[in-house]
Amino acid sequence: MEFQGLFPIWDKLAPQHQQSILSSVISRRLPKGTVLHNGSADCAGFVLIKSGQLRAYILSEEGREITLYRLLEQDICLFSASCVLRSVQFEITVTAEKDTEVYIIPSQVYKTIMEESAPLANFSNELMASRFSDVMWLIEQIMWKSLDTRLARFLLEEAALEESDILKLTHEAIANHLGTAREVVTRMLRYFQNEGYVALTRGTVEITNSDALHDLADN
Amino acid sequence: MEFQGLFPIWDKLAPQHQQSILSSVISRRLPKGTVLHNGSADCAGFVLIKSGQLRAYILSEEGREITLYRLLEQDICLFSASCVLRSVQFEITVTAEKDTEVYIIPSQVYKTIMEESAPLANFSNELMASRFSDVMWLIEQIMWKSLDTRLARFLLEEAALEESDILKLTHEAIANHLGTAREVVTRMLRYFQNEGYVALTRGTVEITNSDALHDLADN
Repeated sequence: MEFQGLFPIWDKLAPQHQQSILSSVISRRLPKGTVLHNGSADCAGFVLIKSGQLRAYILSEEGREITLYRLLEQDICLFSASCVLRSVQFEITVTAEKDTEVYIIPSQVYKTIMEESAPLANFSNELMASRFSDVMWLIEQIMWKSLDTRLARFLLEEAALEESDILKLTHEAIANHLGTAREVVTRMLRYFQNEGYVALTRGTVEITNSDALHDLADN
Repeated sequence: MEFQGLFPIWDKLAPQHQQSILSSVISRRLPKGTVLHNGSADCAGFVLIKSGQLRAYILSEEGREITLYRLLEQDICLFSASCVLRSVQFEITVTAEKDTEVYIIPSQVYKTIMEESAPLANFSNELMASRFSDVMWLIEQIMWKSLDTRLARFLLEEAALEESDILKLTHEAIANHLGTAREVVTRMLRYFQNEGYVALTRGTVEITNSDALHDLADN
């Protein structure tokens, strides 16, 4: 898809701002596993996803992880331009979970236009509110939902993203998404297997009773 | 303090926007306990705090609470105008923790100006990024800090807000701030008392060894 078609408020931008974006935007391929953004260590820019999948997560000092949200085709990664907003006082990491193609508007160009353009500033506001909503949802999950519910939701979400009931996922990877310990995930997956919800083999989880997982996820 | 002096980007607003705000802003007294904002049920507007203290928190279906952040003198409550941003898909409650005086810019006025004014839109962006940072800090606390650390931090924060080492707080109230059960707080406070960090009487917690609490809080 062409850049202009992907950029949601393109028609609302002033011609000189469109011109400034078009002359600076770059296209990049991010092979699976690429770190696009790493806390305050870099500030690549405002990233639009052409195809693929990004994962945004936080890391503890001890190296534990928890997934904040995923970004798919046509989504926008705002925090890869976090240096633009001085009030962003947290560090997230964004990596490519699949081979991904992106457009990048360099941070300085984005910042300069946003300072002048109410449409771009308001659009950025909506983007941030949207990520904020993802994170608030996550807090509610962590605080008030039990791990079986969260694991069921995660497996169903993965199946939808991968369009397959056979998920190539280690217990360690699942633990890193959910922000818990591998042992805890293994125990819960074995319980799911005993109940007939999933079948486990080395490195894969196969969903065998999707209805039961949906019932759990709705809790 | 006068309204214009409290409003951080006043001088950057266009004269017609200043005029429109001045002719619509209202001043309100919120006695302690007043609910200023309650999820999606209302949308009072953009709230500037003249004096006092507000608390923003979320509620579970079962009535459990967790404090997201506090707002003090000169702070701004953006989410009491959450209807302005359609991507805000979460519900928070904001109440006055002390007798509080505020200025309110009605949501519709704020929305109309923000759509035209890059300075106001960018300022709102910074405000949201700042609250987002508070909430990310909270996630890290919940995920990766133990309850003794979180309780020590909370007691020290309260002592700073109240400018007193004798805190009028029930165990229930502390539990609602930290998003845990009363019994869990009671157990931890008794442990703190046995260690000589605090002295407990009905309805109060007195900090008796602030250094020890600081050591715990720094964990």
